[in-house]
Amino acid sequence: MSIELTILGNSSATPTLNRFPSAQYLNMLDHHMLIDCGEGTQMQMRRYKIKKSKIKHVFISHVHGDHILGLPGMIFSMNLNSREEPLHIYGPQNVFDLLDLFIKSSDTHLRFEIVKHITQDQRPEVLLENTVLKVTSFPLYHRVPTTGFVFEEQARLRRINVDACEKAHIPFTYYTDLKRGKDYVSADGKTVIENEKLTYYTGDPVAYAYCSDTQYDERILPHIKGVDLLYHESTFLHEKLERAIETMHTTALQAGMIAQKAQVRKLLIGHFSSRYDDLDVLLQEAKTQFEHTEIAAEGKTFVLD
Amino acid sequence: MSIELTILGNSSATPTLNRFPSAQYLNMLDHHMLIDCGEGTQMQMRRYKIKKSKIKHVFISHVHGDHILGLPGMIFSMNLNSREEPLHIYGPQNVFDLLDLFIKSSDTHLRFEIVKHITQDQRPEVLLENTVLKVTSFPLYHRVPTTGFVFEEQARLRRINVDACEKAHIPFTYYTDLKRGKDYVSADGKTVIENEKLTYYTGDPVAYAYCSDTQYDERILPHIKGVDLLYHESTFLHEKLERAIETMHTTALQAGMIAQKAQVRKLLIGHFSSRYDDLDVLLQEAKTQFEHTEIAAEGKTFVLD
Repeated sequence: MSIELTILGNSSATPTLNRFPSAQYLNMLDHHMLIDCGEGTQMQMRRYKIKKSKIKHVFISHVHGDHILGLPGMIFSMNLNSREEPLHIYGPQNVFDLLDLFIKSSDTHLRFEIVKHITQDQRPEVLLENTVLKVTSFPLYHRVPTTGFVFEEQARLRRINVDACEKAHIPFTYYTDLKRGKDYVSADGKTVIENEKLTYYTGDPVAYAYCSDTQYDERILPHIKGVDLLYHESTFLHEKLERAIETMHTTALQAGMIAQKAQVRKLLIGHFSSRYDDLDVLLQEAKTQFEHTEIAAEGKTFVLD
Repeated sequence: MSIELTILGNSSATPTLNRFPSAQYLNMLDHHMLIDCGEGTQMQMRRYKIKKSKIKHVFISHVHGDHILGLPGMIFSMNLNSREEPLHIYGPQNVFDLLDLFIKSSDTHLRFEIVKHITQDQRPEVLLENTVLKVTSFPLYHRVPTTGFVFEEQARLRRINVDACEKAHIPFTYYTDLKRGKDYVSADGKTVIENEKLTYYTGDPVAYAYCSDTQYDERILPHIKGVDLLYHESTFLHEKLERAIETMHTTALQAGMIAQKAQVRKLLIGHFSSRYDDLDVLLQEAKTQFEHTEIAAEGKTFVLD
């Protein structure tokens, strides 16, 4: 199963002709998730052939228009498309206050349940966990309560070495434990075979961290340390540092610094101010600090493995 | 001065790949107005080179997502662009409840005033009137309180026939009255000259009526009678009449009937269901009732004169 991140919007507050506000689609081990949902997200999903009906979880970092204004329209469209499956939304309390008022004002009768998961921005918190993945929120540092998110694959199951298992006459009933990395111990305790001799390694679990919006702040380092892919906002070039500080945003240079200090494998930068037509200047600036940087280009899909 | 209507969106509830939800830009005698503001309106304005800063009046027909979800984002962008001029919004009370909650939740400090004009849907009401135009709302018949709008040019000023006035030795101070159609009467009351001999006719004033969303309802006829341009919703083909009745929308055939009964000069149809890829079938159906019909095609500007 693949882990794929598709960028639906990379613009900060004001959208441009070619750039929509923040939204990302993450397909992680068959869990279909949206991360933020700026104005026009449902149009972008249509453009990039992502079915609204597949989305089960929506993670909202904070209540600024460029991160949430696409949510009511997407919910209304899901309703028109006769959705019946619950939609899990994770976000601050006032996301739900706004949704409730919208739904009430427009006299909309939802056919499906919105399952509310209210986030807080004071400490890390596990929002979703099952056998294959875990999603954790952690505090960011912006003008309103804001959280980042880490999406982590759980430890991968090992693959059975069928030949070795058959030769050693291992009963099938042991296979689940073997996949989980346990050594084989026969019922009478007389035979012990190390796990490595009966299974194959299938790779390390991967992790993706999402940080938007935030000032440059090293308090986030413990939460994003060593992730395979880090998305970090880069609203301005460093020559606009004063404006970045005033608005509690990050410069491209600072995003590169954070990635370097967190020792991540790859950095994606986004949330660009509408003043930049040419995004390459932001990319080059981030790269002075951290070489493995890419633009979170709209419509582009990044595969983690 | 020209009267120009530019279509920014013509889709009903769910946007399609090429069609945005309801929004129109009306430039009437140098009054720059938006009519409805569906999700993505600010992107469409950018696409069609309509400056947000020019807009002074926004008319909202009703509180359904496809007519209002672009409003908060447009307001936030105006604020980021340092707007200081007041913005007049005309709409039902709950438009303002939603805006207030959005502004409060996102901790936004507006640099400009939003002047609230609360509409009601029980009777016609003059919303804006000055020497050059008049805007009136009137009840439509939909699932939530909804109004249509009529935008009317006031009686046009006549143009001075300079030669005739000079020959008759008319003092300049009389010109304003002459433009307004009054006959010339000299100070001593001895000389009377008919206005037609001193001025030129400059054409009849024009009127534009906007009707979205509504069931087919002849109670609207007195309000739209004889307008130069009528926009009327045409959500469905007539084969979907049952669905139109259930959702309180109109079919293309019914839109043509209303235009014919109201004896308008031209009909524009819009607010199309996303089920129709080919809009020509809707146009042809409306034309069976009223020949002078056009599609309210996105990006197209209709000039009234």
